[in-house]
Amino acid sequence: MKLAIKRKQLSDQVSELTTNRLSVYLRCLNALDAADVKTVSSQTLAQQFHLNAAQIRKDLAYFGEFGVRGVGYYVKDLKRHLRQILGLERRLKVAILGAGNLGLALSDYPGFRQEGFQIVALFDALSTKVGQQSRGGVPIFDITELRKIAAREKIAIAVIAVPADAAQHVVDQVVAAGIKAILNFSPGTLRAPADVKLKSVDLTVSLESLSFYLAHEEEE
Amino acid sequence: MKLAIKRKQLSDQVSELTTNRLSVYLRCLNALDAADVKTVSSQTLAQQFHLNAAQIRKDLAYFGEFGVRGVGYYVKDLKRHLRQILGLERRLKVAILGAGNLGLALSDYPGFRQEGFQIVALFDALSTKVGQQSRGGVPIFDITELRKIAAREKIAIAVIAVPADAAQHVVDQVVAAGIKAILNFSPGTLRAPADVKLKSVDLTVSLESLSFYLAHEEEE
Repeated sequence: MKLAIKRKQLSDQVSELTTNRLSVYLRCLNALDAADVKTVSSQTLAQQFHLNAAQIRKDLAYFGEFGVRGVGYYVKDLKRHLRQILGLERRLKVAILGAGNLGLALSDYPGFRQEGFQIVALFDALSTKVGQQSRGGVPIFDITELRKIAAREKIAIAVIAVPADAAQHVVDQVVAAGIKAILNFSPGTLRAPADVKLKSVDLTVSLESLSFYLAHEEEE
Repeated sequence: MKLAIKRKQLSDQVSELTTNRLSVYLRCLNALDAADVKTVSSQTLAQQFHLNAAQIRKDLAYFGEFGVRGVGYYVKDLKRHLRQILGLERRLKVAILGAGNLGLALSDYPGFRQEGFQIVALFDALSTKVGQQSRGGVPIFDITELRKIAAREKIAIAVIAVPADAAQHVVDQVVAAGIKAILNFSPGTLRAPADVKLKSVDLTVSLESLSFYLAHEEEE
């Protein structure tokens, strides 16, 4: 197993597209494991989940030799390895900034919990929200308490779910609180220091790629 | 302007990554236009919004010759062209399936409206929700009315914001209602016929790429 040796050189070499695919494979393996399937070939995996078998083999080979000739992959083993590669064995703690509809939706998003992320806190500036909790039981704190609670709870990831005009200020507070990874849902460009990983999910971009598809399909 | 000739061959050749970048450029041009900036060079655009100048020139050149030597790009013109390329001049109508926190958050997401998408309806199966509306005034209809309302309102895009175990059934209903583009927020793999474009936003994948980053940064 080449995993241990290879892990050290990874973050520069592995593109975000690859890690995204590993996440998708993990999601498929979870489904197979839940259905009590013991082994799976790259072909079956590809057929069942509309993926590319050669791409699966290439992606996985990069991290070690997980396949067994004539058998394919052992579902539980591969699932465990993927969780390890993705750093999921540690149950990272997540805070959500903004307790509006979006923040509340994210705090109870079942996928996060299933993969071992713990949503430990929501933060808001509105005094009417502070002290309340989400339907799933995540407490809402005052944003001024961010630094204290981030340190105490060892929060690893901050999710930005505030309106666009407040987003940069909130990101600055997250950075000041020592959090090194940010997932941003607010539209517009945000800045963070080089040692902080800021990943934006722009929901408008997703809709626009569908708009592009519709515009150019109709012409054909 | 080569736009008209080139548009016909686009959908196969232009990757989703390119259309995503065009969306980002449009977002930047909106900001410049709002600040009453008349012209911008690819260098300035790149510096101001943390983009790559050569990539901007390459992406835009593909769709026509928008730059003017010694001037750069006319902000309003380029904005108009990008909106045209992305098919945004038509104000596409969008329905959101699922009126929980996520559906309600999406229905009032300001980015959608700014770019000309009209969220015209929410759909839910819960009778307590039907007849209500979102904070921004989007009405909530019974899911059984989807086909009728989709036809009447000419709904172009459906957004799936229901729990994972209901998602495939809802996608089937959307397809039966004749909607050709679907943006899915539910975890898991969904199926749609080949003539329907199904794009999934898996929020867990975004968190996992941050987890991967954190795991491999710490080792260095």
